[in-house]
Amino acid sequence: MASHDPSHHSAQPVAGSAPSERTRIRRIADNARYDRATLHAIVDAAYVCHVAFADDKGTHCIPTACWREGDHLYIHGSNGGRLIKLLAKGTQACVTITHVDGLVLARSAFHHSMNYRSAVVYGCFEAVTDKAAALDAFMHHLAPGREHEARPGNSKELAATTVMRISLAEAACKVRTGGPNDDVEDLQLPVWAGVLPLTMTRGAPVPDGLHIQPAPAYVRGWDGLAV
Amino acid sequence: MASHDPSHHSAQPVAGSAPSERTRIRRIADNARYDRATLHAIVDAAYVCHVAFADDKGTHCIPTACWREGDHLYIHGSNGGRLIKLLAKGTQACVTITHVDGLVLARSAFHHSMNYRSAVVYGCFEAVTDKAAALDAFMHHLAPGREHEARPGNSKELAATTVMRISLAEAACKVRTGGPNDDVEDLQLPVWAGVLPLTMTRGAPVPDGLHIQPAPAYVRGWDGLAV
Repeated sequence: MASHDPSHHSAQPVAGSAPSERTRIRRIADNARYDRATLHAIVDAAYVCHVAFADDKGTHCIPTACWREGDHLYIHGSNGGRLIKLLAKGTQACVTITHVDGLVLARSAFHHSMNYRSAVVYGCFEAVTDKAAALDAFMHHLAPGREHEARPGNSKELAATTVMRISLAEAACKVRTGGPNDDVEDLQLPVWAGVLPLTMTRGAPVPDGLHIQPAPAYVRGWDGLAV
Repeated sequence: MASHDPSHHSAQPVAGSAPSERTRIRRIADNARYDRATLHAIVDAAYVCHVAFADDKGTHCIPTACWREGDHLYIHGSNGGRLIKLLAKGTQACVTITHVDGLVLARSAFHHSMNYRSAVVYGCFEAVTDKAAALDAFMHHLAPGREHEARPGNSKELAATTVMRISLAEAACKVRTGGPNDDVEDLQLPVWAGVLPLTMTRGAPVPDGLHIQPAPAYVRGWDGLAV
């Protein structure tokens, strides 16, 4: 995440090294993470990524659903969509996922910050041949087991859908945790300081009004959990 | 949001018309919104946006904190950061904000979808001259009243910080709400269908361990509320 918070009191070591010049994090490098476990966890916690790419109309940034298999991030869409058509040409893309975990309130305005986990991936998407298997994995990510319950895509639906993936090889993560990093001379100021946490949580399932069926485990267990 | 869910049962009218060719939504155009109220509400509900831009190393997509004043979206950062340096050159940018509101489980795999609110803004950032006032507005967005409590930025801190803004004139929103849009012939399938809601919620404040001060109203009232 872009920031001016120097987090200069951080003692966290940088895990690994950047896979390329454009993934080498320079701002607040102490928050950089280059290990697979951090990257995979950030992707797995996401339902949506932001895909940036350029065409003759400029630079675009489009949100779309995503999931991970192995060391690839997957997306899907209609064959006719701009995003899919452009990416199918081999256009370079940058995929970013960000989870905001809290507001960090410091005693000085300057040291305010946010806790977050972000991942930035560079590369080109490639079309996936076994679309049915990939979409089953997507369904499993959304609701484990549902890939065996919902009516599978028929040949017309599968034909209208493109599944694409991008390697996670050229990627960088940034993670900020913990409280504010105030200047020593500000610590005695009569100002509340700390973290205001933010969490994505699950609400009560809303059954569709027509022909309601018994709720499977992933629906019964949905409510109240943090994602 | 890119999607293949046709949402063909939607009866929502499109509000307004696209301000430009590149903001005219073609996929699932029924979900498009071009009115100021929708756009402002999506920006105001966000702590972070994704900024896409291109340089000689390719297309990038960087998350950064944001806030709104009038019909502009604001960001800030260190003068030395890549994002700020590139945007200061007048590089075309695309700013995207996405809120995921739920998973939409249909009876067929094909009609699965997500409920969401997204905004895509095109334009060029410009530097803001009155940085202190803009950063006060940012603080007010994060924690109303705190702009009068935290130590303000000193001349050195303000000099190290750049505040930039982009007009919200060329923007498009997409909003999906409601349940699944199954094909009529699938409605009798013995498959649970409905929405699994997702909400960003606020957790219990974590005071910084040093010199704890009384909590102001925006801290006492933080916990448990949806954002």
